[in-house]
Amino acid sequence: MGIAGPVVPTQEAQPTLRPLGIANVRITSGLWADRQRINREVSIPIGSTRLREAGNLADLELAAKYLTDPGRPADRDAYRGPWFMDSDVYKWLEAVSWECLRADSDELRSELELFSKAVETAQHDDGYVNSYVQVTRAGRDRYRDLVMGHEHYCFGHLVQAAVAAHRLLGDCALWQVALHAADHLVATFGPDGNDGLDGHPVIEMALVELYRETGRTQYLDLAQHFVETRGRGTIRGRGRDPIYFSDRVSVRETLVPEGHAVRAVYLAAGASDLALERDDDSLAAALDRQWHAMTATKQYVTGGLGSRWDGEAFGDPYELPPDVAYAETCASIGAIQWAWRRLLATGDVRFADGIEQLLLNGFLSGVSLSGDAFFYVNALQVRSDAVPDDHRQPVNGRQQWFQTACCPPNVMRTIAQLSGYLATGDDAGVQLHQYAAGEIDFAGRRLTVSTDYPWDGRVEVTVDVTDQRDWTLSLRVPSWCVGATLTDPDGQTTPVSAGYATTRRTWQPGDRVVLELPMPVRLIEAHHRVDAVRGCRAIARGPLVYAVEQCDVVGALAVDDLTLGADDAAQLTPRWESDLLGGCVTVTARTFTAVPYFLWANRTVGPMRVWLPLAVTG
Amino acid sequence: MGIAGPVVPTQEAQPTLRPLGIANVRITSGLWADRQRINREVSIPIGSTRLREAGNLADLELAAKYLTDPGRPADRDAYRGPWFMDSDVYKWLEAVSWECLRADSDELRSELELFSKAVETAQHDDGYVNSYVQVTRAGRDRYRDLVMGHEHYCFGHLVQAAVAAHRLLGDCALWQVALHAADHLVATFGPDGNDGLDGHPVIEMALVELYRETGRTQYLDLAQHFVETRGRGTIRGRGRDPIYFSDRVSVRETLVPEGHAVRAVYLAAGASDLALERDDDSLAAALDRQWHAMTATKQYVTGGLGSRWDGEAFGDPYELPPDVAYAETCASIGAIQWAWRRLLATGDVRFADGIEQLLLNGFLSGVSLSGDAFFYVNALQVRSDAVPDDHRQPVNGRQQWFQTACCPPNVMRTIAQLSGYLATGDDAGVQLHQYAAGEIDFAGRRLTVSTDYPWDGRVEVTVDVTDQRDWTLSLRVPSWCVGATLTDPDGQTTPVSAGYATTRRTWQPGDRVVLELPMPVRLIEAHHRVDAVRGCRAIARGPLVYAVEQCDVVGALAVDDLTLGADDAAQLTPRWESDLLGGCVTVTARTFTAVPYFLWANRTVGPMRVWLPLAVTG
Repeated sequence: MGIAGPVVPTQEAQPTLRPLGIANVRITSGLWADRQRINREVSIPIGSTRLREAGNLADLELAAKYLTDPGRPADRDAYRGPWFMDSDVYKWLEAVSWECLRADSDELRSELELFSKAVETAQHDDGYVNSYVQVTRAGRDRYRDLVMGHEHYCFGHLVQAAVAAHRLLGDCALWQVALHAADHLVATFGPDGNDGLDGHPVIEMALVELYRETGRTQYLDLAQHFVETRGRGTIRGRGRDPIYFSDRVSVRETLVPEGHAVRAVYLAAGASDLALERDDDSLAAALDRQWHAMTATKQYVTGGLGSRWDGEAFGDPYELPPDVAYAETCASIGAIQWAWRRLLATGDVRFADGIEQLLLNGFLSGVSLSGDAFFYVNALQVRSDAVPDDHRQPVNGRQQWFQTACCPPNVMRTIAQLSGYLATGDDAGVQLHQYAAGEIDFAGRRLTVSTDYPWDGRVEVTVDVTDQRDWTLSLRVPSWCVGATLTDPDGQTTPVSAGYATTRRTWQPGDRVVLELPMPVRLIEAHHRVDAVRGCRAIARGPLVYAVEQCDVVGALAVDDLTLGADDAAQLTPRWESDLLGGCVTVTARTFTAVPYFLWANRTVGPMRVWLPLAVTG
Repeated sequence: MGIAGPVVPTQEAQPTLRPLGIANVRITSGLWADRQRINREVSIPIGSTRLREAGNLADLELAAKYLTDPGRPADRDAYRGPWFMDSDVYKWLEAVSWECLRADSDELRSELELFSKAVETAQHDDGYVNSYVQVTRAGRDRYRDLVMGHEHYCFGHLVQAAVAAHRLLGDCALWQVALHAADHLVATFGPDGNDGLDGHPVIEMALVELYRETGRTQYLDLAQHFVETRGRGTIRGRGRDPIYFSDRVSVRETLVPEGHAVRAVYLAAGASDLALERDDDSLAAALDRQWHAMTATKQYVTGGLGSRWDGEAFGDPYELPPDVAYAETCASIGAIQWAWRRLLATGDVRFADGIEQLLLNGFLSGVSLSGDAFFYVNALQVRSDAVPDDHRQPVNGRQQWFQTACCPPNVMRTIAQLSGYLATGDDAGVQLHQYAAGEIDFAGRRLTVSTDYPWDGRVEVTVDVTDQRDWTLSLRVPSWCVGATLTDPDGQTTPVSAGYATTRRTWQPGDRVVLELPMPVRLIEAHHRVDAVRGCRAIARGPLVYAVEQCDVVGALAVDDLTLGADDAAQLTPRWESDLLGGCVTVTARTFTAVPYFLWANRTVGPMRVWLPLAVTG
């Protein structure tokens, strides 16, 4: 079996780093192991229930029913939910596939089979499948509304799920459905056919990965067509202009992502795949320029992306209000996907730093500790007296599911495939990008990682099994870290700075390297143009950003009125609390205790803030 | 003829102040005279053109065409614009009527006649008239979509226009149309009929004013029904919940306005009318509590209301980001209407202060100096590198018209009736609330006001004609003013503090009172909970808030990077510039010149900010 991970560049591609599969990197304990357990035991099973309750499965069944009926379906009104319901099914099936690769499950396999069958049965002879169009329009008028119809978007998630299923099962029903659908797209779209573009990218990433899995260049060509023809300023509709659809400027010419955040980062991730497989340096350079501009001017300290509720969109540069932040969970996921692709391509540590920031803050906040509730929007502040209107969920707390339920299954698939993002490796070495206690087993080498990260900065890597050749062990030293040291197998300790700390040697079984990442409490100050948090500091420790919830403020003080005095700043004390929120390190000051941001709203739902004003003296 | 002003409480009502009509208060020179001239010469004529171009008039003509056709209109698709197109016509007709009352015009009268005829011709025999419903639904399914259909909203503006026309013309076509429509509403809605509520208030104000104009209590009763039954939490639809519709909490129990800002303030204005006419102290108290909570926690320094683009809505308390402020021009207008009603009722100077803040900042910014372009959204900051997407107009500058064109005719009617908001009076005295050079002529008294307000704080009031009785002249001393003095006709100068400075005497022709309102440049600091402008100051002088535009920054400094040093603060210098922006007082510092906020975006459209960060020392 080849590499069973989320992104597998072809042998012809020239990435700097080669991914390891999910099965090659196992997380055995600690925070991420807990999250993966909950994902398996709670979230993924809930997904199955919700997809039935919300009508996603029934919609596919209806679509199958009317497949052979040329007339208008009698119960077309029985279709439930928005027009992209199928995509939730696909994302969840992708989660199931990765989860089975991670740790097999008969139950999940039979769910995969059942839902795959529903998709297969709904698919038209020519490869088209979309329950909304098939039910509500009797399958006519396909692609009538490419701008908002999400048909390619649904196909994209179908393909991504099918690739994961193929890596689990080899040939299978979902795989055949996806191939058929992709062939339908190839036959229908492109320079010689329908030259339209779907308003919501994701098909680009999907087609490149399908090319990787099959070697068929027509998929890569179509992905390239979709990427290259975007940016003509023609996609508009439902009151949205080309900016919203990442269509104002071409990918190559974009300076910083704009418009709908999820669309923008999905497109960038797909273009990153393309740049790698086509060895397209100028496209790659454009994407990296965008990444760095985005992280410098449009990203919250939590990693969150998207400042505006209106259009679920990026704001202007430095428009980063914490209270009305949108920071959709899916945008964090898309950014992780983008960064991972560019990390593989370049080996640039900044992408790994970015993934860490996202994973442990603005992504992980998207799911409750219990795994059964989700944030779509990840605000950095909730005020006292906030009005809990229907859809302003930072005020209402995490929800069980959504009318637009993109985020929950996206969280599930990401946590299931998480170990695929931790390490890379090839003959020349092994690179650890994210830290979790676990094992890496790959091409005759086995390493054990022992750590309490992110609660503690000590990371021990022991080489258990190795061949007798020289290879390099690279350990990421995060950009937030000052004073890191590396102790080599000979017991030599040396200071290491941000980047990758490398140890090259002929390894012996039992060799151990220890990375020490000091984690003092830090106070982060924003760029001066971020008006919304002027005069404030965010508390951080290690990779984690902290939040102060009203329930952790001493006395009658409102969290809105909290300030950070010079005394407080000097006395911010980290403390491991094993009984709190599944075990976490809190940071205590004179008047409050802060908890990791991703854990907020797991006890009560109330006022909260990440940015604390400095007390004004004099 | 009675009082020809915008709000005329009945004789049975017990307002503290009695309005004077538009014809009784004439503005003769200065800023507002210029604006009224431009309104007459440019804006109102443009309105006529736009209403033809956009299809508003044609929609009414289509409606007339299908009035007698029981079938489905063949060219129903010929209807143009959104479903509330009629309301723009009505607001513009109201502007025309007030304008003719202010200074008669044969041209405007014939426009009034022409459009009135179109409305009359479109009206159904039973009084119903709504071009959208009549054309697109053949008049069927009236009130099918009360939540978003704006049918009562259109009726409300029809009635308001008709009241203005009635004050101009007495009985006339528009008046009869409105009476007929109102009778239709009375026959259709209420506790014994359809108990639904329109999603967009305004009908409440309109029905009370119609009651005042006719003495028919059924209109007042229906207004009361609409006010009293709102707040049951039942109005929802199109993704909006009761909060959006001011329906989460009853008017009596609301603590601070929430949801869609224009809806909320229109409702409060209508409820204010009701409270006065029904002598309902508890309702009045609820409204005043809301006003003061709103101005304390949800109002921008420009008077602007509504922090969120999403839902055009109020934010939570203290959520007042300057860059993404919505601050719709119509919300400023609605707030002026609300405040005026409560000012009449209570005589509380805070309402007059609030009107001044709104009029000279967040309202007047809504129209260009040239009178031919309009802001719907009145942001307090535009960043460098802001992306000019289609509907983010603070970045694009004022627009000629809008798909949803509520604001332009609303500006026109407000400027036309402006003199109605300046003064009140009765036997006991005359009260001046807003200052403009002009004449007040009322019940045998005539006063001349000489002033360069708002550019200069000296206000001279000369009594030209008077009877021999004692009466009191009250002059508002604005809350922003420190060190005001009043010089009485005997030449006695005394310090006066915020509130009303009164002079009671037996006046003689030629008696003169001089109010001196010192106008040093001030720096305004926001409440500490307004995170978005922490560490900043807004420049103000007199009633005007200032803005710094990129074009007025010295050298290559971006307005985004501007700070206010201790040196700057000490050296802020006001200067009258007769050739700039129609003549205005600028405020100059070492590195920039600030212009009155309402005048921004009249030269170039570019980065701008109202709130300036203090330079951080040390």
